[in-house]
Amino acid sequence: MKLVADNIRITKAEIQKSLNDRDPLPVRTLAQRCAAAGAHAIDINTGPLKKNPESSMTFFVRAVQSVTDLPLVIDTTNPLAMAAGLEAAQNPVIINGISLEPEKLSHILPLAARYDADIVGFLLAPDSRVPRENEERFEIALALVGAVEAAGISPERLILDPVVPPLSWDDGLARAREVLETVGMLPELLGFPVRTMAGLSNLTTGAGDKGKKNRMEIVYLSMLAAAGLDYLMLDILNSEVSAAARAADLMARGEIFSWAGVD
Amino acid sequence: MKLVADNIRITKAEIQKSLNDRDPLPVRTLAQRCAAAGAHAIDINTGPLKKNPESSMTFFVRAVQSVTDLPLVIDTTNPLAMAAGLEAAQNPVIINGISLEPEKLSHILPLAARYDADIVGFLLAPDSRVPRENEERFEIALALVGAVEAAGISPERLILDPVVPPLSWDDGLARAREVLETVGMLPELLGFPVRTMAGLSNLTTGAGDKGKKNRMEIVYLSMLAAAGLDYLMLDILNSEVSAAARAADLMARGEIFSWAGVD
Repeated sequence: MKLVADNIRITKAEIQKSLNDRDPLPVRTLAQRCAAAGAHAIDINTGPLKKNPESSMTFFVRAVQSVTDLPLVIDTTNPLAMAAGLEAAQNPVIINGISLEPEKLSHILPLAARYDADIVGFLLAPDSRVPRENEERFEIALALVGAVEAAGISPERLILDPVVPPLSWDDGLARAREVLETVGMLPELLGFPVRTMAGLSNLTTGAGDKGKKNRMEIVYLSMLAAAGLDYLMLDILNSEVSAAARAADLMARGEIFSWAGVD
Repeated sequence: MKLVADNIRITKAEIQKSLNDRDPLPVRTLAQRCAAAGAHAIDINTGPLKKNPESSMTFFVRAVQSVTDLPLVIDTTNPLAMAAGLEAAQNPVIINGISLEPEKLSHILPLAARYDADIVGFLLAPDSRVPRENEERFEIALALVGAVEAAGISPERLILDPVVPPLSWDDGLARAREVLETVGMLPELLGFPVRTMAGLSNLTTGAGDKGKKNRMEIVYLSMLAAAGLDYLMLDILNSEVSAAARAADLMARGEIFSWAGVD
């Protein structure tokens, strides 16, 4: 289970300010901290970047890859920003992402073919609604594979994200369990070892006690690891949760155990 | 997932001394602390009790049930001690346990019929060896169900324990994963919702850093909960691990989430 740092987000004041000032230092520093904390890839979540999408994304991609060779996960809904990010990227790159939303299929998906990039597909209905049941999730997964193939992209390029729900939703627990089931069943259902990704922070979104949030995140990421998840997106600088994610991966996939290999 | 306190063990000096002095206070105090910490049942692990098996087990059972109505898990290989414990028990009781070892089948198993008690069956070969593969585990499970039925006991009385291996074994990780698979598959394989139990402490047995042990125990118990485990035996007074076990159970089986319901 590879760990994707979700720390570089434009919703953080320091990151927005870094962009506004075109000062790469705060982004570089944060990217270095993520790499040092054990990230296997770094998500660059810029939001829609309505103003100067191309120069803004180029700024972020250059800032991050000036300090690390880790894969970049370019996380924007703006096709212009996405294309600029892919153009600027020298590190391996993952497009984050598409869904069955027509806008995404027509403007983001073709970029995966043009730039030979991996691409995340969210298991969301075409209107971006979270599916109510696993049956609908599986139908959406099949439709995404079909769309990727129709765009001339190998389905092996697709990474499916079943969208972790907040526990605070009325049916959050039941939906979180459905996500576990989906992660476990997708490879068999699709007939090839499709990779899966999940964003952990959504589980405990909102205000709340840090210790309790960590506890729920740790038990859930352990279950995700056991289900065979390939990429976990998380706050890599939360050392308790990150250490647990490495331990869960060791338990789920490791070959040789030693206490020296546990944080 | 019910939590069984494994804290009352004769290998602890205070418990051995309590027995030697026939002073129930230390046993009572420990049982009370386990109940207060959220135990759903209390294991009384007396070892073989070669000296005075009957009066010794009676002492323990009386001491514990003088302070709690929780189910007792009577944990001895000595049939005389087991029978005395069952005789003294007023609380609900679980016999811990049998295997395909002939001695256990002829001397411990009949007690489950006589005292109308639940009984733990270990998935061990007749010579007490830990099975090498899941196929062997399933054969043993079927043989245990057959033995229980042959003794006139309903298979619903049986709780299967697949025997958690120490991670420090050469193939500890692989075996620990096999146990997860076994827990998940047994009900379907046996054709009825057979209950399962696992002892967590064996996973991290031996010397080692407490924080690392807790981390491995927490990720593993989360995976056990997701696999559908019914009874987790653990050090209930380890508050970090116990809180995680409750969180894992909430995640695996809970209906309604609230932060107030998380430790």
